[in-house]
Amino acid sequence: MSCWLQTKSWPEAEEAFRESKGVVIVPIGSTEQHSLHLPVGTDTYVAITLAEAAAEKTGVLVAPPVWYGWSPHHMVRSGTITIRPEVLADLTYDIMASLKAHGGDKIILLNGHRIVNVIWMQIAAERAQRELGVTVKIYDPAYMSKDIVGELGFGPVGHAEEVETSHMMYRYPELVHLEKAKDNPITGHPLYSVDPCYTHDTLCYVPSTFAQAQKSAAIAGGATGEPTKSDAQRGKIYHDHLVDNLVSVIRSLQES
Amino acid sequence: MSCWLQTKSWPEAEEAFRESKGVVIVPIGSTEQHSLHLPVGTDTYVAITLAEAAAEKTGVLVAPPVWYGWSPHHMVRSGTITIRPEVLADLTYDIMASLKAHGGDKIILLNGHRIVNVIWMQIAAERAQRELGVTVKIYDPAYMSKDIVGELGFGPVGHAEEVETSHMMYRYPELVHLEKAKDNPITGHPLYSVDPCYTHDTLCYVPSTFAQAQKSAAIAGGATGEPTKSDAQRGKIYHDHLVDNLVSVIRSLQES
Amino acid sequence: MSCWLQTKSWPEAEEAFRESKGVVIVPIGSTEQHSLHLPVGTDTYVAITLAEAAAEKTGVLVAPPVWYGWSPHHMVRSGTITIRPEVLADLTYDIMASLKAHGGDKIILLNGHRIVNVIWMQIAAERAQRELGVTVKIYDPAYMSKDIVGELGFGPVGHAEEVETSHMMYRYPELVHLEKAKDNPITGHPLYSVDPCYTHDTLCYVPSTFAQAQKSAAIAGGATGEPTKSDAQRGKIYHDHLVDNLVSVIRSLQES
Amino acid sequence: MSCWLQTKSWPEAEEAFRESKGVVIVPIGSTEQHSLHLPVGTDTYVAITLAEAAAEKTGVLVAPPVWYGWSPHHMVRSGTITIRPEVLADLTYDIMASLKAHGGDKIILLNGHRIVNVIWMQIAAERAQRELGVTVKIYDPAYMSKDIVGELGFGPVGHAEEVETSHMMYRYPELVHLEKAKDNPITGHPLYSVDPCYTHDTLCYVPSTFAQAQKSAAIAGGATGEPTKSDAQRGKIYHDHLVDNLVSVIRSLQES
Amino acid sequence: MSCWLQTKSWPEAEEAFRESKGVVIVPIGSTEQHSLHLPVGTDTYVAITLAEAAAEKTGVLVAPPVWYGWSPHHMVRSGTITIRPEVLADLTYDIMASLKAHGGDKIILLNGHRIVNVIWMQIAAERAQRELGVTVKIYDPAYMSKDIVGELGFGPVGHAEEVETSHMMYRYPELVHLEKAKDNPITGHPLYSVDPCYTHDTLCYVPSTFAQAQKSAAIAGGATGEPTKSDAQRGKIYHDHLVDNLVSVIRSLQES
Amino acid sequence: MSCWLQTKSWPEAEEAFRESKGVVIVPIGSTEQHSLHLPVGTDTYVAITLAEAAAEKTGVLVAPPVWYGWSPHHMVRSGTITIRPEVLADLTYDIMASLKAHGGDKIILLNGHRIVNVIWMQIAAERAQRELGVTVKIYDPAYMSKDIVGELGFGPVGHAEEVETSHMMYRYPELVHLEKAKDNPITGHPLYSVDPCYTHDTLCYVPSTFAQAQKSAAIAGGATGEPTKSDAQRGKIYHDHLVDNLVSVIRSLQES
Repeated sequence: MSCWLQTKSWPEAEEAFRESKGVVIVPIGSTEQHSLHLPVGTDTYVAITLAEAAAEKTGVLVAPPVWYGWSPHHMVRSGTITIRPEVLADLTYDIMASLKAHGGDKIILLNGHRIVNVIWMQIAAERAQRELGVTVKIYDPAYMSKDIVGELGFGPVGHAEEVETSHMMYRYPELVHLEKAKDNPITGHPLYSVDPCYTHDTLCYVPSTFAQAQKSAAIAGGATGEPTKSDAQRGKIYHDHLVDNLVSVIRSLQES
Repeated sequence: MSCWLQTKSWPEAEEAFRESKGVVIVPIGSTEQHSLHLPVGTDTYVAITLAEAAAEKTGVLVAPPVWYGWSPHHMVRSGTITIRPEVLADLTYDIMASLKAHGGDKIILLNGHRIVNVIWMQIAAERAQRELGVTVKIYDPAYMSKDIVGELGFGPVGHAEEVETSHMMYRYPELVHLEKAKDNPITGHPLYSVDPCYTHDTLCYVPSTFAQAQKSAAIAGGATGEPTKSDAQRGKIYHDHLVDNLVSVIRSLQES
Repeated sequence: MSCWLQTKSWPEAEEAFRESKGVVIVPIGSTEQHSLHLPVGTDTYVAITLAEAAAEKTGVLVAPPVWYGWSPHHMVRSGTITIRPEVLADLTYDIMASLKAHGGDKIILLNGHRIVNVIWMQIAAERAQRELGVTVKIYDPAYMSKDIVGELGFGPVGHAEEVETSHMMYRYPELVHLEKAKDNPITGHPLYSVDPCYTHDTLCYVPSTFAQAQKSAAIAGGATGEPTKSDAQRGKIYHDHLVDNLVSVIRSLQES
Repeated sequence: MSCWLQTKSWPEAEEAFRESKGVVIVPIGSTEQHSLHLPVGTDTYVAITLAEAAAEKTGVLVAPPVWYGWSPHHMVRSGTITIRPEVLADLTYDIMASLKAHGGDKIILLNGHRIVNVIWMQIAAERAQRELGVTVKIYDPAYMSKDIVGELGFGPVGHAEEVETSHMMYRYPELVHLEKAKDNPITGHPLYSVDPCYTHDTLCYVPSTFAQAQKSAAIAGGATGEPTKSDAQRGKIYHDHLVDNLVSVIRSLQES
Repeated sequence: MSCWLQTKSWPEAEEAFRESKGVVIVPIGSTEQHSLHLPVGTDTYVAITLAEAAAEKTGVLVAPPVWYGWSPHHMVRSGTITIRPEVLADLTYDIMASLKAHGGDKIILLNGHRIVNVIWMQIAAERAQRELGVTVKIYDPAYMSKDIVGELGFGPVGHAEEVETSHMMYRYPELVHLEKAKDNPITGHPLYSVDPCYTHDTLCYVPSTFAQAQKSAAIAGGATGEPTKSDAQRGKIYHDHLVDNLVSVIRSLQES
Repeated sequence: MSCWLQTKSWPEAEEAFRESKGVVIVPIGSTEQHSLHLPVGTDTYVAITLAEAAAEKTGVLVAPPVWYGWSPHHMVRSGTITIRPEVLADLTYDIMASLKAHGGDKIILLNGHRIVNVIWMQIAAERAQRELGVTVKIYDPAYMSKDIVGELGFGPVGHAEEVETSHMMYRYPELVHLEKAKDNPITGHPLYSVDPCYTHDTLCYVPSTFAQAQKSAAIAGGATGEPTKSDAQRGKIYHDHLVDNLVSVIRSLQES
């Protein structure tokens, strides 16, 4: 039986909330440029595949995906759709309020869009915990792969780089055009980095301005990092690591 | 090649906007109880299948689906997720603003959720037309099948009734449990009807209160109408009629 | 004794809420161009006269009129005042919250502005029903005259056409300059109509853009339809039909 | 010809904006308890009659009245309707934006509700001046009668006191029940007064709490002051003084 | 021990709320041009010094100062920072909600910025009283010095005039450059005045437009009034008068 | 001459913006419980002292401090004041808009409150960069001391722990009661950490619920970490490191 709420009749949904012990995953991504070789839906595909894999192992319920995120800095390239963060926070709050009404009071916001969505999710999650009495965890691949990315020899977190390219090659090979990938290596960041593994002093992240993003997108089609060094094998190891961690989070929520 | 924006890299998206002559479909549905025999995602599946079918015939671009709608009156049954109408209007406005930035200035809000979503869509569409300079059409199956439903012998528009059940049986048979369907026949409406074919005086629609919806849902599991009289053959005729009309709308937008 | 709340002292108001059995009419219209022959206040006058007539027959209480509506598409001609729909919804919500505090918990939003006001009224009405525990009916002349307009030989619903012109000629003859009226006959609508009697497939209504409205207003001074075919006699029959229906709604609310 | 915008066709409105030299009065009042002897619409009637009288002398245009104001402290008695101040500010801003679009760029917010409406009007007026480029004056009877009230021997400004009662007796005698009036004399205010003529130190006004208002309303049916000392003759002198001042404001705006 | 909340650990704060008998002062000013001779922080310094002086006499608790106010009309000169009134109302509401949670339910909004801040404070105060159940007083020097300014021979309230200059000379002499002061005498106001002592008819205050403020600032560097006539001795008498009044307000709140 | 904007007259402010080459620091902290030994204003004091020290070395302009932050999770102890994140984002946006109007277009949001304020600052900063055309950097001590905290032997980032206690002991010894400090050592965080130096997989931060915060505050008076191990000497090294980094950020902004 599918893990997706949208496929179920309401009696089936009722049963799924119960069997899930109140845990529901809400996969949220973005629709934004991912350089020349990855689809604009990459971040949402990442959230979807992780949700499905963890649900298969745990029987947990998954709400319909949210395909849209906060992407002002990627509007420099076609296909990007950006939603104001306060609108996304309200949307997600309402989803959580409805889930809670049906017994889904342990909610995982599964973010495929890394730091930019995390920002508004923190606001939505805090409000939901305080006002609705739910427990909310934000699960983000970039923060849940710190233990593995070094081992795999991946470079730092950028955009459409070898980390997400390898992941997509393993899970959605038909959507990847590796032959079109161009590299834009990440060099030193004396006072700034989005990489959660970066161990030196750093300013806090603010999404790039249009002008900065224009410049960056002109170098390698919108990529930051070295996507040509990607491969599906490491994508699989990375994926499995993330699924294992997600399963741990689900289990600990179910036992709480 | 897929019609879906999310599957495309940004250079492919750029080309798709151009080939589509600026026309983009945004499929929007709901996640709400559809009685005992239909999935809670029914309204979104309806929007998705119509978008795909019309895109196949016209090569038009389709934005990622919005799975969530305004469904306060269906919260009486599990699995329903309701979003405030002002949040949905803001979300859809932002989607349209981004589409416009990439050349998508003729937008079809393809609604699978009938009158309740139409309300906030009208507000979003007017604002977008005025502020963004786009052209917006709201395409809704219930209003675009008035010529055919009588011919097919369908009863009046209700909820999870023979019209949408037949449609789902034709397009998503694996998600329909017709054997569980219960009837809740629609009788006279002296001063109220949501059926756009209803020819007598009527008050304007306001979504039911929780108490009214409780009562109604207790009768036949949430259905209003006679789903047991559904069949896939009429679902196909109904579907084809809607696709033809949608193609006409697309063509006229492309020529405008 | 006057039906209008504004004329009463608070002890008289207290008694009026009681005698009205909780039913209160809130007349809401617009201030917008109505071609060369009707006043810009037409929609509000329509709401006022229907409220007064029904109150005379039933003793029901009437709240002070709201003279302003949502009219973005009529800004192309002088005298039109348009309020954002979210502001009107908030205003009307607050009126309903106050009425409820004094025992007015069965509220009729009597709209003289047809479909455009209905949109935001639906949002306000749903919120009020859910949050305030009131019952709200939206009563609109265009939807409550489907049984009579055909009999009277009126053409389709347009703007400042023979239907509202005849009504104004019966009730406010001093405000009508029939000699200035120009016709702008409504011809076929293959995929679009605001007429609730229209029986064929139709897209859902979105208020016209400024450019569309400019074009339309240039033809016959802002009219859509054939106002020159108006007369007070049919205006009376139309009026009486609407009053009878409104009385029925009041009675059924009082008995509920 | 009537001064009221709502009675005019759009060509008449167009001419009225021109003849008014851009000056438009927007009468705004309230619907709130005015003790046992005055109607709940008193504040709006005051705004209406002053607008009409000044328009008769100057030919200035008058927009339809707003019958609703901010009255949280009067909800303790039946018939009071209170709107949130931010909603009223938005409503009035939109009215001003529409007036400006038709050439009405010198706007008088004619307030019949004294200090409580003045608060939100100041916010709306500042925003309108800055964003719309209009000139806005707030005209309030309580502030424009400081020169005359002493001469007339009126006591301090209260609520439903001899000042507004005398005014209503002159202009709307049929709505005044003087025989029901009760007095609630205003005694010393060491650190607080709403009377603009009060010459001693005072805290700034905050509308009463429900509990305070309950107590006050229990004394004399909601009056503060001595309404039994009212008479129409002084009401006329007061009225004429206000009209003269309003005419001065209109003239100075027309000449600016 | 300091009166300021920010200097206390939470156990000390807990005790301070108790000893203060629930009374808390929130000093709120502005950062805006004060002509050539006063610092842009003048209004906040005024609020701070009054709070400190009254706290010294009463042991009352003082919350951290808010340095920012509503100053759109002073943006014509450098250093002015203006916050939208609705944002300030929300900020102050949240401060009051938190104070209430710790027992601070008698709140004095001590405004150093005169009438412009009073406007939004009235909205915040009313909402807080109604929704939070606190008592709120707005204490403003311009309204609490009507008894003394005449005695001292000060001219009318303007901006950076002899009243606030004398006050600053007494309390913050190191921040005053009297040698740079220029006069801009206030002459007759037939229909307008911000001076609470003004005894003649007056329109209600609306902050100046940018154009008006430009003109005014060009005359005497932004001053309205006669700052050259300032002296610290009268500043002391004025200060002591305000502190005495503030102490009275505190005492009466503590006894209520 | 003081670095603080509030102390300057507008001509002095004008010069300061010029000399600062457009760089302005806005110090923002919080008022929240900091265990038994630190004042509730700690976070704001941290922002203030860093701003002053960097300004002394560079002559940069500093805007008045914002003493209030987002602290919902610390409401469990007295003295905490929490502002909604959307209100803080609006406040800070308006400050930046005003600074920009006077030439301050390179803005450093200097946050003393660590991750919780960073969240809403990111939203405000992105909006300001996009809409106002300013450059915004968020400078946070917790992220700008990763290079030094290990060297100094400090434990992980907690709350009121040895890092901020040592810093306060160096800069504000009179406000620290080290003798009251209690330890609450931070042990392993298998899937969660706020410490930016933490190198293992981690969920993203959501402020604690009231219940969680209650439990935590009961252990050591609200501290997380080991404040008893604090000393002013290491506080000085930590402070100097942060100042040096802040100076670097200022220099690089001035050169950009």
